[in-house]
Amino acid sequence: MQTNQTINAARLWDSLMAMAEIGATPKGGVKRLTLTEVDKAGRARFAEWCAALGLSLRVDAIGNMFARREGRDPARPPVLMGSHLDSQPTGGKFDGALGVIAGLEVMRTLNDLGIETEAPIELVNWTDEEGSRFGHSLMGSGVWAGVYTLPKAYALRDVEGVSVEEALDSIGAKGPHKAEPFPADSYFELHIEQGPILEREGKTIGIVTGAQAQVWYDAVITGQDAHAGTTPPSARRDALVAAARVIAHVDALMRARGEEGRGTVGQLQVLPNSRNVVPGEVRFSVEFRHPADAEIAGLAESFPAEARALVEATGCRMELTELFRIPAQPFDPDCVELVRRAAAKLGLPAREIISGAGHDAVYVARRVPAAMIFTPCKDGLSHNEAESILPEEAAAGCQVLFEAVLARANRPL
Amino acid sequence: MQTNQTINAARLWDSLMAMAEIGATPKGGVKRLTLTEVDKAGRARFAEWCAALGLSLRVDAIGNMFARREGRDPARPPVLMGSHLDSQPTGGKFDGALGVIAGLEVMRTLNDLGIETEAPIELVNWTDEEGSRFGHSLMGSGVWAGVYTLPKAYALRDVEGVSVEEALDSIGAKGPHKAEPFPADSYFELHIEQGPILEREGKTIGIVTGAQAQVWYDAVITGQDAHAGTTPPSARRDALVAAARVIAHVDALMRARGEEGRGTVGQLQVLPNSRNVVPGEVRFSVEFRHPADAEIAGLAESFPAEARALVEATGCRMELTELFRIPAQPFDPDCVELVRRAAAKLGLPAREIISGAGHDAVYVARRVPAAMIFTPCKDGLSHNEAESILPEEAAAGCQVLFEAVLARANRPL
Repeated sequence: MQTNQTINAARLWDSLMAMAEIGATPKGGVKRLTLTEVDKAGRARFAEWCAALGLSLRVDAIGNMFARREGRDPARPPVLMGSHLDSQPTGGKFDGALGVIAGLEVMRTLNDLGIETEAPIELVNWTDEEGSRFGHSLMGSGVWAGVYTLPKAYALRDVEGVSVEEALDSIGAKGPHKAEPFPADSYFELHIEQGPILEREGKTIGIVTGAQAQVWYDAVITGQDAHAGTTPPSARRDALVAAARVIAHVDALMRARGEEGRGTVGQLQVLPNSRNVVPGEVRFSVEFRHPADAEIAGLAESFPAEARALVEATGCRMELTELFRIPAQPFDPDCVELVRRAAAKLGLPAREIISGAGHDAVYVARRVPAAMIFTPCKDGLSHNEAESILPEEAAAGCQVLFEAVLARANRPL
Repeated sequence: MQTNQTINAARLWDSLMAMAEIGATPKGGVKRLTLTEVDKAGRARFAEWCAALGLSLRVDAIGNMFARREGRDPARPPVLMGSHLDSQPTGGKFDGALGVIAGLEVMRTLNDLGIETEAPIELVNWTDEEGSRFGHSLMGSGVWAGVYTLPKAYALRDVEGVSVEEALDSIGAKGPHKAEPFPADSYFELHIEQGPILEREGKTIGIVTGAQAQVWYDAVITGQDAHAGTTPPSARRDALVAAARVIAHVDALMRARGEEGRGTVGQLQVLPNSRNVVPGEVRFSVEFRHPADAEIAGLAESFPAEARALVEATGCRMELTELFRIPAQPFDPDCVELVRRAAAKLGLPAREIISGAGHDAVYVARRVPAAMIFTPCKDGLSHNEAESILPEEAAAGCQVLFEAVLARANRPL
């Protein structure tokens, strides 16, 4: 790397591994569900590390943690960077943790080099990005950005009936600061890609230009249970045959949109699910994603009627419920340009990429100019205990984060 | 009905309802699982009824019950009739019970009319037709006919680990007689159709000419779990998209064979079954049935390769296990003719029909000339608490059984 201000790759990796010890699973993954005792331990370690650097910590009402390194001009709005420390139930070591620990390494490097930035810099750990426990992903950043209200978030309950507010209180994670946008200069988030594109193309850095538009559905197809041996073709209303047509259509609609298309039936349940009974009911999820709002709007317009026609041709009927539609979220061109320049300056193989997954940056971007940096993960695997990255990939991502944040914090106003 | 030897329709219905009280469910169905305390109560009531008629009861080692009415010539092999008293977990009042209770009504009518038949007549209650508890349908008739060995049947266990032999002993259902074929003249079984054909065509009697050939499979399609948002079409190996193609193909193969074709995927499981994960594995059942052995042999020849090609075109792979193949079982032409003549004599609307379901008669027919009589059931519904028939349909079926059994028992040798 062609820079004389270099992060400490070994220290970064050591801290990643130290965080991964908290909630480590036998299969090499991490189970650090939000607002549990394990999360409490992760938060505590993070807070200790921040304190050791002389950062001042603020915690807001939804548990978001902001560790501030003062700038030469404390009145300037801070440059934010970060991600999340919570994990999936059978998650990996790097999803979320990479962005937080890399931000910590940026702070450590700034300290080591005695760099005083113009603007303050704040490192953020957002609460409950995963949504695994309370069923609502991007909760901390969503409340902060005003996408959800605090009372609504507080009232969410896990499968054991524990509310978010009770869980916050039980581990002392609720802070005195309001969970709402404050003036900030920008937000940068480093994250593993969670997909195969960078690895497949041999790129080290993904310059994330925005996040996809999405539309999600619940579908219920109703036919008629019938004896598989006695019911002739003309008397069948087979809900699974109908669902198969919809699944094939979702796949075709995705492929018709080329490599940027996404269309998935991930969850499906057959009733009564007995070998010798023609299925009377099938319940399943459908989702489409695309970088262009117009594509998702078009699908939301045409898909329900097309799917219904396919289903009704089999004698079944379908209820299709649109769960939500999220517009595409382009990231801030200036922030994206800083990421692009950093990768170029460092000579790192890079490509522009659209985020297929949701990230805290997507909600933060509604309030603050934002950008993201992706690094590859092995076989594109994530939300999986086998999630794996190389130390040099983590270091490269961290160095790009350092460059972008430093440039932004020192930019002339 | 044009006969002066008429069964007592009201008494038949009363006994059907009396048997349905044993294991009655709140939704109007029956739960009389084989070899449970409830089954014991059903067997006891059956035995009392038989004793009241002066029938002599034999029980064999697998719990099959044979209630004998002596003939003028005790040396003649008996005419058998019957069905089963066990039910599905959420079964109906008539599946099985109709054939047994109608046989009882035949015995009562013979007694009332003081008829002495040439050959003896035996009424049979076969053990565990349903297979719901120990996972092996047609167990009692299968052991009797030598399709399975007694030790194999004894060793089967329910989900709580209780073996068939332990269950037999626990309710005192194991008898001293060998479970093996004895010389018998014939076997007649009255059963509800469990399908929609008779009702749709306004027929009261189904003259069952045989049972379908069948081939059953277990399929496992393996693709690759992947993030639904980040994984582009070219990188997907979606096991559910692959399964959808196989489901559509099974349906097409069925329809290509017209109204006699049967092809069903009844059971299907998606892994990991998460909304935003491209499915990495799908497990499902496939079965085909057809009256003609050649059609099933042809399907067993061609289907695996065709399905595999469809799956491999999606980048997934498939393991397909053939669980079993049962040849078509034609019933005995002379016995079938007696059913046909009885329906004609009584002026009952009738049609020939192939049994789509498995029945005790299918295994018994391997050892003894056999035939079946079907009567309609509402909406073709069976294996369901809502299973429903009309008293006059039960009576018509019982009268046909009476005519056929009487004719056979009195036939000149």
